[in-house]
This record gives sequence, structure tokens and C-alpha cells, in this order.
Amino acid sequence: MTDAPMTASGPSTATTGEILSRHLTAQAGAFLRALPQAVGEVGSRPGAVVHAPAGTADLLRSVRRIGGALHTFAASFDPVWAQESRTELRWLLNLLAQEPGYLRRSTRLLGALDSLSGSEPDGPGMLAGHAGAPKARALLDRQLTLARTRAHSTVLQELRSARLHALADRMTLLVGEVPLRTPDGGPLHPQADAALAALTTGAQQLPLLRAATPYGGDGLRRLGSVPAARGVLDADAALAADDAPWNRVRILLKRARYALEVCARPVPELDALDRTLGRHQEASDAAVTAATAARTPRITPATAYVLGVVHADQRLEVEAARYAFGRQWPDLSPGLAGREGPPAPRMA
Amino acid sequence: MTDAPMTASGPSTATTGEILSRHLTAQAGAFLRALPQAVGEVGSRPGAVVHAPAGTADLLRSVRRIGGALHTFAASFDPVWAQESRTELRWLLNLLAQEPGYLRRSTRLLGALDSLSGSEPDGPGMLAGHAGAPKARALLDRQLTLARTRAHSTVLQELRSARLHALADRMTLLVGEVPLRTPDGGPLHPQADAALAALTTGAQQLPLLRAATPYGGDGLRRLGSVPAARGVLDADAALAADDAPWNRVRILLKRARYALEVCARPVPELDALDRTLGRHQEASDAAVTAATAARTPRITPATAYVLGVVHADQRLEVEAARYAFGRQWPDLSPGLAGREGPPAPRMA
Repeated sequence: MTDAPMTASGPSTATTGEILSRHLTAQAGAFLRALPQAVGEVGSRPGAVVHAPAGTADLLRSVRRIGGALHTFAASFDPVWAQESRTELRWLLNLLAQEPGYLRRSTRLLGALDSLSGSEPDGPGMLAGHAGAPKARALLDRQLTLARTRAHSTVLQELRSARLHALADRMTLLVGEVPLRTPDGGPLHPQADAALAALTTGAQQLPLLRAATPYGGDGLRRLGSVPAARGVLDADAALAADDAPWNRVRILLKRARYALEVCARPVPELDALDRTLGRHQEASDAAVTAATAARTPRITPATAYVLGVVHADQRLEVEAARYAFGRQWPDLSPGLAGREGPPAPRMA
Repeated sequence: MTDAPMTASGPSTATTGEILSRHLTAQAGAFLRALPQAVGEVGSRPGAVVHAPAGTADLLRSVRRIGGALHTFAASFDPVWAQESRTELRWLLNLLAQEPGYLRRSTRLLGALDSLSGSEPDGPGMLAGHAGAPKARALLDRQLTLARTRAHSTVLQELRSARLHALADRMTLLVGEVPLRTPDGGPLHPQADAALAALTTGAQQLPLLRAATPYGGDGLRRLGSVPAARGVLDADAALAADDAPWNRVRILLKRARYALEVCARPVPELDALDRTLGRHQEASDAAVTAATAARTPRITPATAYVLGVVHADQRLEVEAARYAFGRQWPDLSPGLAGREGPPAPRMA
């Protein structure tokens, strides 16, 4: 991480309008190139297991960046257009992210189960040879395959919808012209800095110090982020409320990343933190899946027992991700603060 | 931890025989004073919950120290007498330790369950409000109370036995005279140093570096200490084999502690390490109890699920104890090495 002066994509004479237009035009172009490939991918695999289909990944990448820019630099854009576009992009994001999400969750949960029930002499797990392990594995596999198949059908249907065509048209128009509120686009860096400040505020509200103490039980026993006002909670609500601020920071972090990309001020540490919070989110979701599977009627006690172990194992992963984040974050803060100082490309 | 010259109990002119005699005489006296109190305690509480009855604790304390000295300084004693005494002391140790052990395990497991299923708004657990939690709690409570009651009956019976009277007579004789092999007792410090060396060797064979990386999964997923030669194992065997070297080090550590006490070279760090490995042992035992309870016939899936979470939680405690030990150990090694250098009391 150096403080080298900015170069390349953002010449110091460019206005905010020029910088945002160049960025959105490029991303909208990427969207339009990735869309037919993604549609082809979805159509060609009726349930086939492909971990990260390239077209879908590219499409998601540009959808996230356009949506992020429209949010962070909202003051620069025509507000009605920006709001409508964000709604449609979020719809597509949720639509496309589901199937790969279930696939990753499946890989994570079955991998955890295989690891916990593995019986290799050099590294058996605490469920080695347990009678419930194959049943629990089959149950998780069945439920996640079903969820993935449903997501696949939905995406297959929606990719032919008028809504997607309208969004594609919207992106085509965006390649031609970005609807700015004023020609120069207003100030750029204060908006990016606000995204960074929102991230910093959000992260500071996390129990980072506590999370940085290993084995503190923050993912299992002490779900302390829940507001006291809510009174007695069930476990699902408690877990969801406990994870919520971390997921919120994950979103703020992505927005900050994308905003710094627009300003040609990438911070590699943010990528690492993003991956850590992605792991947090995936473990949190996987834990919910294990807990839900354990409520399936008529399962055997042995199956339920194994699912309890898997649930705890995934909550431990949540705790481990928080620990990793708590260790990474303080190192980053001064670096980020330094970058907020002298802005590199000229502000409009 | 200072390297101050030794004073008080071990004047530098004392022979090994004198030092060992003084130590064993004192401990045998403590044994005889604590015995009637312990017998009274056991008799007066038919299942009453007293966490650490003072007489029993004192008795266990002297039993451990006499047994440890007879093992470490074996070369100084009449071998037949020492071997017989150790056998009888170990019998009493196992007998007396059971009931308090079940009580501690009960406190640990029910505490863990209460913490995991707690629904206080400021710190609910991942099982908050779970239907299986009260049932699992009742099951664990019932099984541990039964085990404790059985242990109580056994100890009540054995405290009236001829075997205990014979051991008490043996201790009375010990107060009068310690059966040394030679009058001067031979060398003292080389025997203590051998106990320390055995501890160091044992600890170095532990996966300390791996354990010092938090959330490495050593208690749950990677039970790597199991010899590869054993082939496919079930979970109980894998867990027992994985914990065995740590329990072995716990015993070596106690022996080293007691040996250094005899030499009037106490190392306070060993007390902390002993507590850490005690926690390891208790979490390991508690995990077995949870896993065993989950095999109770006719329990509901919800109960089994909660026991799975509790089992994983205790294995996590095992991992946390290993982490703590891995962090404590390297700081200690140089200190111990320093103490092994210039012996304080004169060797005989």
C-alpha cells in the first residue's frame, strides 16, 4: 500500500461528470457483453454444477459496480433515473446471485460435514464414523439442490422477461449518455469520502475489540449486538440480529471499494476485508440452512445431532471471520485515513 | 518469575534424604489430618451439592504430592514400598476425584447449555428459545446426577474399607520414617530435572504451533494426533486418541510442579499451565458426556440437535485450551531452562 500519486485512468483535469461517465459507460458496456453469455450459461445447464460461470460472474460484477456508483455518487445523477436504475439492478443482482449462492453454500456445508466426519487417520473429525453423518449429508444435499433448482427455474424464466429487456435497454442508453444532474457532475471526492466515512462509522460500531479475542464465543454464546429493547428472542431472530451489523458493514465496504475504484484510488486491503466479510455472510447463511434442516420432520436423532454439530461449526466460522476482520481492520484505518487526505484527481 | 536464591525450607546443607523425608512427612501429616474430615464430608452429604469440600480437596492435594514424589524421586526410595504406596494412592485418588469431577462436569455442561440457550437480550446464545434445550438440560442433569450418586455410594463404601485403613496406616508410618534406599537419598536435582525434561519433551511433541493459530479446527475437524497406523476410527476413538497426548502432558506437568516444590523451586507459570490443561481435560470429558447423552434411546431430534451443539461447543473449549497452552508455553521454556542451571539447595 503506497501513497503514489494517481495516474492512468483519471487525468487530473477531468471533471466529475467525465470520470463518472467514463466509468459507467465502461461498466454498462461490460454488462451488455456479459448478458448474452450469462443467458446462454443459464439456459445450457439445467441444474448442472458449474461453480462460477464466467458470464454470470462478469454480469454480477458490472451490476454491483453500476449500482454502487449510482448510490455513492447519487448527487451527481438525475435522481429519478438513478433510483429506478438501482431498483432494477438490485432485482437482477438478487436474481442472479441466488443460484451460485446455493452452490457455494452446498460446497461449504457438505465440505464441513465431510471434514467433521472424515475418518482419514491423519485428520479425522469429531463426527468420524458417526451413523448420522451420511443421512445429514443426504438431507442437506437434497434441500440445497432443491433450492438451487428452484432458483435456476426462476432465473431461466426472468431472463426472458420484459423487465430484463427493459434493463438491457437502459444499459444501452447508458453507454450512449450518462444522465448527469449538471454537466460537470458536481464534487466527486466528497461523495467517495462519505462512502468511506460510512464504512468507518459502521465498522467502529462493531464489537471489534471483543471479536479480536479468539474463542470469545461471539458467534455461539454471546450474540451481543442484539438491541436490548427487543426482549426475549428466539435463536433465529437472535442470530439474524447479531449478524446484521456485520452484513451492513459488508455492504458499506463494497460501496467504498467501488467508490475508490471510480476515483482510481483502489485500496487492496479492502478486497481482503471484503472477502473476510463474504466468508462471514456465507457461514452465517450456511448455519441457518443447517438449523433449518434440523427442523425437517421425521429425521432421526442421529441426523439432528450431526446437524447440531454442523450448525455450531458454521457459527464458529462466523466467529473466526469476525476475529479475522477485527485483526485486519485496525491496520487498515490509518492507511485509509491517509488516503482521505490529499485527493489525487482534481475535484470538479 | 525471579532467579532469587533459594531460602527457607531447603537449607543448602540438607541431604536429599532429609529434604524428601521432611516433604513426605509433612504431606503424610496433611493426609492424616484431612482424612477424617473428608470421611465426614462424604458421609454428611447424601448427594448434596458442595462444589469443593475442603477436607476432600486437602486429601487429594496431599495424595497427589506424595504420589508425585514417589514417582519422580523413585531412585531414592525403597522400590517395593514406593510402588505399593503409589498403587494405593492412585486408587484413593481415582476414588475421591470422581464425585467432585462429575459435579464440575455438571456445572460446566449445564452452564454451557444455559449460555447457549440463554435469551437475555444483551447476550442470547445460538440456541435461544430452542425447544430441545430444556429437554437436553434435563437429560444431562439426570445422567450426571446418576453418575455422581453412584460415585458417592462407591466412595462411601470404600471409606470404610480395610484398604483405606491400610493406606492410613501406611501414611502414619511415613510420618515416622521415610523408607529411603540409602540414608542420604542419592541425588535430588537430577531426578527433578528429569521430570522437567519429560515435560518439555512431551510438550514439544504436541502440535503447539498449529494450536497457537486460533480457529484452526484442532478440536473439531483436525484430530491430527492420531497415529496413522490405526486405520479408520470412529469418532470416540479419534477424539480420545487426539486428546491423549495433551492429557499425558497434563500429568507430566503436575509431576514437574510437585518435583519443583520438593526442591523449593516453585515455578508459578506451571500452575497456570496446569489450570489450562485441567480445562482441556474437563472440556474433553464434558464433550464425551454430551456425545454419550445423544445416544440415549428414544430422545427427540430436537434434544439430539442441542446435544450436538453442546458437543461442538465443548470441543471448541478443548481447542481454546490448546490455543491458550500454545501461547503460554514458549514464554515459559526459557524461564524453566534458566532454573535448570545452577541448582539452589546442595545436591547430596
